[in-house]
Amino acid sequence: MTRTSPHTAGSASRGQPRATMKDVAALAKVGLSTVSRVVNGDNRVSDAKTAAVLQAIRELGFRRNDSARQLRVGATQSIGLVIENVIDPFFSHLTHAVENYSLERNTLLLSASSTRDPERTRRLVLEFCARRVDGLIVTPADTEETGYLQAEMDAGTPMVFVDRPPRGIEADTVLTGDRSGAARGVAHLIRHGHRRIACVTDRGQLHTAAQRLAGYRDALDAAAIRYDPELVYSATPSVENFRTPVARMLALDNPPTAVFTGNNRSTVAILRVMAGWDTRPALVGFDDFELADALHPGVTVVAQHPAEMGRAAAEQLFRRIGGDTGPPRHTILGTTLIPRGSGEIPPSRK
Amino acid sequence: MTRTSPHTAGSASRGQPRATMKDVAALAKVGLSTVSRVVNGDNRVSDAKTAAVLQAIRELGFRRNDSARQLRVGATQSIGLVIENVIDPFFSHLTHAVENYSLERNTLLLSASSTRDPERTRRLVLEFCARRVDGLIVTPADTEETGYLQAEMDAGTPMVFVDRPPRGIEADTVLTGDRSGAARGVAHLIRHGHRRIACVTDRGQLHTAAQRLAGYRDALDAAAIRYDPELVYSATPSVENFRTPVARMLALDNPPTAVFTGNNRSTVAILRVMAGWDTRPALVGFDDFELADALHPGVTVVAQHPAEMGRAAAEQLFRRIGGDTGPPRHTILGTTLIPRGSGEIPPSRK
Repeated sequence: MTRTSPHTAGSASRGQPRATMKDVAALAKVGLSTVSRVVNGDNRVSDAKTAAVLQAIRELGFRRNDSARQLRVGATQSIGLVIENVIDPFFSHLTHAVENYSLERNTLLLSASSTRDPERTRRLVLEFCARRVDGLIVTPADTEETGYLQAEMDAGTPMVFVDRPPRGIEADTVLTGDRSGAARGVAHLIRHGHRRIACVTDRGQLHTAAQRLAGYRDALDAAAIRYDPELVYSATPSVENFRTPVARMLALDNPPTAVFTGNNRSTVAILRVMAGWDTRPALVGFDDFELADALHPGVTVVAQHPAEMGRAAAEQLFRRIGGDTGPPRHTILGTTLIPRGSGEIPPSRK
Repeated sequence: MTRTSPHTAGSASRGQPRATMKDVAALAKVGLSTVSRVVNGDNRVSDAKTAAVLQAIRELGFRRNDSARQLRVGATQSIGLVIENVIDPFFSHLTHAVENYSLERNTLLLSASSTRDPERTRRLVLEFCARRVDGLIVTPADTEETGYLQAEMDAGTPMVFVDRPPRGIEADTVLTGDRSGAARGVAHLIRHGHRRIACVTDRGQLHTAAQRLAGYRDALDAAAIRYDPELVYSATPSVENFRTPVARMLALDNPPTAVFTGNNRSTVAILRVMAGWDTRPALVGFDDFELADALHPGVTVVAQHPAEMGRAAAEQLFRRIGGDTGPPRHTILGTTLIPRGSGEIPPSRK
């Protein structure tokens, strides 16, 4: 298929747009800048002129040739965001904050979910770079294969990594204080009398899960409680994955009286596993979630701040896009312990 | 800024990529097709060759010039999705389904939230069209100003509307059976002995809210129960907006014994309003939400199927992109009543 130059005027045929903005301006009897404003969604145009332009666009079948515009201007005014999964509320809140921040700066956000698939992550990053985004915010897959990220950064696409750092790449990061936050949550259980505390986390190779498990151990060490691997279980969070291991822990001679969960997906899965149980162990979850306060008992959490993380990542990315060539900046956002009942249950008598 | 042709070879300077794929192929000592595969995220390339290509890309500062590619190929292989708000789990599940469907077809999904702002909706639609997406799935803002949608459709961008129809435009839609689903939920309460049933919905001008309110009235009519406007309240869902009106209803001489809520945001807000109350009215909510089953009592809902809606919208859009010029197709997905306890509470004695 051949394409005419964007500067060539011509009449439109359906599905083969060839009209230019000049044609639209002539038919609508307005200036070229007015057409440009309407097409760019700028609302400083009267309703009457907007209607005339839209009518002319319809009649001519005009479509703005953005590819040509990109070649001329050299910038798309867009940034990309590759998160793990939009259905996880942690990531949907983070996405929303990034989107609001960038739209306030007249920059479109392109976002996509990698769903923990390293190949899909790679494909999305390369697709976004190929679309000439001005920069990228990425939650990297937990994989060693990050060479393509370095290659795109070297080729001029600024990147900020959020939630987890990329392996073997020195770059801007925005993370939660995972290890210290987890230690705080576990210390809270210890303060309420628990010494047998289970730790149920996401897959151990995940950076955040490993950091939170390390924080769990820190809190045990600080209280001189022996680490017992029988009380630790890591897997992709689901009722199916957690049911048997948790039942096995609770059937031990010396069972746990409390559970620490490593992220909101794990907490929700554990709540489902324990649904209908007469007596439940105490519970502190890492990461807050909707309705944690409406359950009985309310769920005590170590809250992360996903919207603030998204905002911090966007701020840093815009600094880079604006030309900041300073050394990599590592931002760590603190956590907030929110006691709601489940974490304040004393150890049950055996 | 002038840009060199994508076919001009040249050495790279940082931030000014000028190398071509041919340069990369020469340096990596591989064929052009191998470079193309690596750049396109195709994994049918050996690890050694991939590493060599990535190394060459780094050394040369190569960036694929996708704008030039778009002009040649004439298609971006991307679709756009404009939803209301990604932090609403209804929309995050819908988004995820559309994204999976399109990625399976080697098509990138660009998605964004309009946050109920008609001007932001318009801007996002025009931005996506300017980026030459192959088609769009849109949840339209509840506004009369939809002329720009018609203009972009006429100019050749297929669109499918999801969750709500656009006003005054005849086009493909994928909706939930809002009215019949709501009638079913209210009839369920009537079957459990209620005759004074409050209806709390999102803003009345919202298509879905209006349809669900109509369904509420249908169910009352069918049971010969008089419609009482004092039992109906519509506003953007929040604890602040709902607290006083709900308290006022329950202070009536003849208060409601049950509440029907019009979407998951309304149900969650009402649950917060009623937190800590000794006796609660029965409750049926439209739209399911996470942990609805873990609350006490579990929340009875008329479940929508957001993932199936996303999938149906994507299927229809790909049919249009593939050349289907048939008449507009209207898909309505049914609802599922899930009794969990809150909707089966009998009317309390006064």
